[in-house]
Amino acid sequence: MNLKKIIQNNQLEPYFVKGSFGIEKEGLRTDESGHLAQTDHPAGFGSRNHHPYVQTDFSEAQLELVTPALDTLKQQYQWLKALHDVVNRTIDEDEFVWPFSMANILPEEEDIPLIKVDDYREIRYREKLAEKYGRKKQMISGVHYNFSFTPEFLEKINSHVQSEENVDEWCNDLYLKMSRNYLRYQWVLTYLFGASPTSHPSLLDSETIGPVRSLRNSQYGYHNTFSDNVSYESIENYIRDIEELVQNNTLYEEREYYGSSRLRGAGKNVCQLVNNGTRYVEFRSFDLNPLDPLGFSYEQSLFVHVYLLTMVWMDEDNTDEDIKVGIAKNAATALEHPFEPSQYKEEGLALLKRMKETSMELDLSDDYTAVIDKAIHLFHHPKETLSARIVEEQKSRDSFIEYGIELGKRYKQLSLEKPFLLNGFETLEMSTQLLLFDALQLGVKTTVLDEQDQFLDFNYKGDKEYVRNGNMTSRDTYISHWIMANKTVTKKLLKDNDFAVPEGEEFSSLEEAKDYYVIAKDRAIVIKPKSTNYGVGITIFKQTPERADYEEALNFAFTKDDSILIEEYIEGTEYRFFVLDGKVEAVLLREPANVTGDGEHTVRELIGMKNTHPYRGENHRAPLAKIKMGEIEALMLKEQGYAFNSVIAKNEKVYLRENSNISTGGDSIDVTDDMHESYKTIAEEIARALDVKVTGLDLIVPDIHVSSTEENKGYTVIEANFNPAMNMHAYVQKGKGRRLSRKVLDMLYPNIELS
Amino acid sequence: MNLKKIIQNNQLEPYFVKGSFGIEKEGLRTDESGHLAQTDHPAGFGSRNHHPYVQTDFSEAQLELVTPALDTLKQQYQWLKALHDVVNRTIDEDEFVWPFSMANILPEEEDIPLIKVDDYREIRYREKLAEKYGRKKQMISGVHYNFSFTPEFLEKINSHVQSEENVDEWCNDLYLKMSRNYLRYQWVLTYLFGASPTSHPSLLDSETIGPVRSLRNSQYGYHNTFSDNVSYESIENYIRDIEELVQNNTLYEEREYYGSSRLRGAGKNVCQLVNNGTRYVEFRSFDLNPLDPLGFSYEQSLFVHVYLLTMVWMDEDNTDEDIKVGIAKNAATALEHPFEPSQYKEEGLALLKRMKETSMELDLSDDYTAVIDKAIHLFHHPKETLSARIVEEQKSRDSFIEYGIELGKRYKQLSLEKPFLLNGFETLEMSTQLLLFDALQLGVKTTVLDEQDQFLDFNYKGDKEYVRNGNMTSRDTYISHWIMANKTVTKKLLKDNDFAVPEGEEFSSLEEAKDYYVIAKDRAIVIKPKSTNYGVGITIFKQTPERADYEEALNFAFTKDDSILIEEYIEGTEYRFFVLDGKVEAVLLREPANVTGDGEHTVRELIGMKNTHPYRGENHRAPLAKIKMGEIEALMLKEQGYAFNSVIAKNEKVYLRENSNISTGGDSIDVTDDMHESYKTIAEEIARALDVKVTGLDLIVPDIHVSSTEENKGYTVIEANFNPAMNMHAYVQKGKGRRLSRKVLDMLYPNIELS
Repeated sequence: MNLKKIIQNNQLEPYFVKGSFGIEKEGLRTDESGHLAQTDHPAGFGSRNHHPYVQTDFSEAQLELVTPALDTLKQQYQWLKALHDVVNRTIDEDEFVWPFSMANILPEEEDIPLIKVDDYREIRYREKLAEKYGRKKQMISGVHYNFSFTPEFLEKINSHVQSEENVDEWCNDLYLKMSRNYLRYQWVLTYLFGASPTSHPSLLDSETIGPVRSLRNSQYGYHNTFSDNVSYESIENYIRDIEELVQNNTLYEEREYYGSSRLRGAGKNVCQLVNNGTRYVEFRSFDLNPLDPLGFSYEQSLFVHVYLLTMVWMDEDNTDEDIKVGIAKNAATALEHPFEPSQYKEEGLALLKRMKETSMELDLSDDYTAVIDKAIHLFHHPKETLSARIVEEQKSRDSFIEYGIELGKRYKQLSLEKPFLLNGFETLEMSTQLLLFDALQLGVKTTVLDEQDQFLDFNYKGDKEYVRNGNMTSRDTYISHWIMANKTVTKKLLKDNDFAVPEGEEFSSLEEAKDYYVIAKDRAIVIKPKSTNYGVGITIFKQTPERADYEEALNFAFTKDDSILIEEYIEGTEYRFFVLDGKVEAVLLREPANVTGDGEHTVRELIGMKNTHPYRGENHRAPLAKIKMGEIEALMLKEQGYAFNSVIAKNEKVYLRENSNISTGGDSIDVTDDMHESYKTIAEEIARALDVKVTGLDLIVPDIHVSSTEENKGYTVIEANFNPAMNMHAYVQKGKGRRLSRKVLDMLYPNIELS
Repeated sequence: MNLKKIIQNNQLEPYFVKGSFGIEKEGLRTDESGHLAQTDHPAGFGSRNHHPYVQTDFSEAQLELVTPALDTLKQQYQWLKALHDVVNRTIDEDEFVWPFSMANILPEEEDIPLIKVDDYREIRYREKLAEKYGRKKQMISGVHYNFSFTPEFLEKINSHVQSEENVDEWCNDLYLKMSRNYLRYQWVLTYLFGASPTSHPSLLDSETIGPVRSLRNSQYGYHNTFSDNVSYESIENYIRDIEELVQNNTLYEEREYYGSSRLRGAGKNVCQLVNNGTRYVEFRSFDLNPLDPLGFSYEQSLFVHVYLLTMVWMDEDNTDEDIKVGIAKNAATALEHPFEPSQYKEEGLALLKRMKETSMELDLSDDYTAVIDKAIHLFHHPKETLSARIVEEQKSRDSFIEYGIELGKRYKQLSLEKPFLLNGFETLEMSTQLLLFDALQLGVKTTVLDEQDQFLDFNYKGDKEYVRNGNMTSRDTYISHWIMANKTVTKKLLKDNDFAVPEGEEFSSLEEAKDYYVIAKDRAIVIKPKSTNYGVGITIFKQTPERADYEEALNFAFTKDDSILIEEYIEGTEYRFFVLDGKVEAVLLREPANVTGDGEHTVRELIGMKNTHPYRGENHRAPLAKIKMGEIEALMLKEQGYAFNSVIAKNEKVYLRENSNISTGGDSIDVTDDMHESYKTIAEEIARALDVKVTGLDLIVPDIHVSSTEENKGYTVIEANFNPAMNMHAYVQKGKGRRLSRKVLDMLYPNIELS
């Protein structure tokens, strides 16, 4: 079967260049002094039994980050970023992840902790590995790159294949060819991406060896020598050889096979590859890239993809003997001095030329050609390779360990700067980012179904749940949403259930609303559109309005909606009660944008200072908004007798806004623990009356310390919100943050396994 | 307490003129020849045990329609209209409701069937009434008008009342004053609205009496003479007198008291009035108005309201002695000849003058002054009173009975003309009208919470449910709605569950969508906006598109949404499967607007003929839309070689539209029973996978008679609709209509009591 011809004749290139991409990345937890952490795997990750994203490999301190198989490299990097945030924010405050493949400061063999899991077979397996290779050797970490073609591509090809082979057979052949050629030319990857030039003596005394391209890919690295004898000529041979290694006890288990390319099928046993075919291939020769916060750069990933495509696209097809040549060249390249040119430079440049041709023929994007051009450049300038740059950089540091500590801490800090954002998914709404973080942290299998729609798909031990906007779930009914969306209906329902709501009426006719003046004029009133939110179209009359003002307010409200509400205005402070699954989980007071004087600084300076708070940002991508200095703020200041350049007396509070919205620079103050229990009980009863699991209730409570009673209710319900923001409770200006997203997960999965 | 002063001093007039209004209206079921129906109360009304709207009074054939207490007279009339539709469409085809107070042709006493209910006490009570008054007398029907002030008004007044009285005490006094003055002047109502001038001899031989204003209000009518001795001077006296009548066995039960004004409290016993106060007053002196299809006109209702207000507003306050005068004047007026002026004309005009002053002082709307002016006119022109007009009209008919049959049948026909609309609520969406009809018919207590939002509130034996748009209920989850609203998510979910969906991709970037041409060009495709409905922004390429056309279609779709879908185009006919509570309840084929030729008529004529079908209407207020003759239709005709004036050959079908939407004149064809069971099973499985109780699934099925199999699925799911129209299944162009609204009720109330 000539795959290339089939693709070309049938114009299947667009399908060929797609794929499914995953990354597994190991990394050692390290204490502040650069020693291997002796602590347990953090409890924050929940249970390792089911964790699809954060695992431990050989040692308790050896983290393994696993992305799911994803449709694009961009997604692969979204996930890799997000998982790094999850890890960096979950591990102990005084630990970080070691950025190099070669280990941090290791203790004596017997003090390297094996993983602590329930399954004794897993422990036993590691004990055997420890006996055979030594624990230290197992602490060398790396990156595995998982790749497969799309089912769509395979189906398309299959419909054009003329042979008698079934899809699994030629599919195995396809991945075998990729593997053979990969192994033949892997030295090129080591030349470009080798990144383990030196080592700490507790693992390996590399002083005597001198700096090299990749200790890990060399004879000093992490591999089994007998791997070289596994055949890639046919799936049958591949299986036979691996099974033989197990049968003669050279390998304890199939998974001990450390070949740079491993074919993976549906099941655990390699023999299943015959019946079920190769599902994906695992390429294992990659060092951690310490110059990238993620340990492997996006450009590397692009390069590997086009490298793999070329391995299939090229007419050349290597034999097991050629593979041996390739393995030898890789070992030799690994031990080259980073500053020296490659001894196989010409072969390397020839391969890169073929890769470039491939990318042309496949009409790949400029990103791909750019990384190939960069690689060509590196063959001409060895001092710019990764290994050379590391050696160069390390010179100005005291030691390998100092350098590792510096990089590791710096990368950790990147995740800690904005704890409210999840890198990779920072365009999602913040509530969804928080929930996604919690799911990834606890090991709930997640698919981001739709980024625009904030749609997540969870699967915990087969139990599926869908969530939109972080809090819309299957636990709520369709109709309760509509009840809350309709202010008149909400009020009617609450009134019928004897809750205190503002008196008022709904109008869909301007004339009738005008006639209502005879009643409205008796009281302080609020005029608002029926269905809009965020205070749009609202007018408040704290005193009896003049008829003209009243009618103007009506006209204004009617520009926003076909129906309006005229309600009595209730004096007092408004609090947001977040009720979740029957319980008030947070109570928030929102205060209009303000600054407090110090007798020295101007309003402008005070605002500037307040705006430096890390929680203050823009475009709804921070828990609080920066205070603006626009016309509204200037007017508000003027009413108080100030301007932006006024110096404010010590402890005097000056307001920049009348409205208390967070989005216009307001403060968020958590008062959950201060609010009298009676109001929390009322909020919980309201949620029950609305038959709703998630709601944000706005209650006006004049005195939160005085109990509500039958005679003096002490509260009025203003609104029930069906999609209440969770993020504003999580990171507050003052008081305790409340991680509501985690409570949503608890509601969906009450039996989630913790550590 | 001077109520009027309190109101005036505190400007409470706007609260005083509000109220709560209800109507109870009796009416005899009648067979086609004008005899009292001998059939049972129709099973269609469900169980009488809990029916709040349609009851039976004395006889099995005596319907009683009961509106709830409503905030406005407009609402009172909405409900009265709707209940008439419910009754007229539920009673036997060959029965109608007798329009007169005086009965239809009655059989002998013993053949008048008493109500057939389970409660033996109810039967026993009627048996006693039958013994005492005779069954025939009980067959005289009338209208009761229930009125109360609003709680808000009473609270306002209470806060200004200076006395020691509690609210219940002075509230009783208020309603007692209203009653005393009502009884003193009720003769005016009888003069104006008396409408029982004659009777059929089977009830009463009125020939000897001659035509009068109101036989029912006269000594020949339906009342108990001892009523006159009940005092209205204080609540204590009122209670004492009624209780005495029961204790000395003059009355069997309190409810046998037939006074024209009855004070009603919270409980069944009149003594509870002292502790709980009067809740409303029932005014019972009204004859059925046979000249109004509802038996009581809106103008009458307006007049009674301002009459009642005047009875309170006037300084005059009558005594028990005055009431006796009033009762006597009423009896005398009842027996006056309809053509003669009132013997109390001056008193009447004086009262009307006071009513007019009242309406001025209370700033009532012109509608009110108009009905008072009309009444003044009637005092000057007795021949235009209701009773006179009936006598006049009856002259040209063979008999009282003929006249009754004519009117009764005509009024019934009004309800049958457009069975898909519910009069009074005809501005609601049709699906909501259907559901509301079903609820009223079966006696599910209903509140129309919000007409604009199609929001109904049901209460069946205390079990509350809310419904929006006829099918959004508490039975569906919040998230399943969002899953269906997002076409990409729906498809992903269905694909994961192995249902056949069109292949395709989502794009939010025009550039990426353009690049997809390399894949799109291989197949027939549909390009559509991700979230819009009704086919807006869709382009279909049944053959491989040219690149330019492809890009134009992309641009078009992107004008409608930020994201678009490019899917393979599936050949075949699309069917709408309506799945409800796990079961396919209807399958509909929609055919584009078309006419079939007869070799004689032009397209224009054929369209005209087709458009006369009663199901075809406009503005979504009919199950089918009229076929238009616009540009699109002309173009479509032209493509087939025709114009609007072409004569079409016999049996040739000509299409006016390419799209099959009902809203553009398409035909609806029910194929529920023709569709192969396997596809219905699949649709049910899809609904289960979506975890949804109500959905409209669009499936393309090339052959509905061939079973779906694992190898040849024979269907593709195109869309899952979360708010599927129910009405288009109810009244179809061809096939059997499916009343899905009734199934929604069954889902909400699986244990609803039938007859």
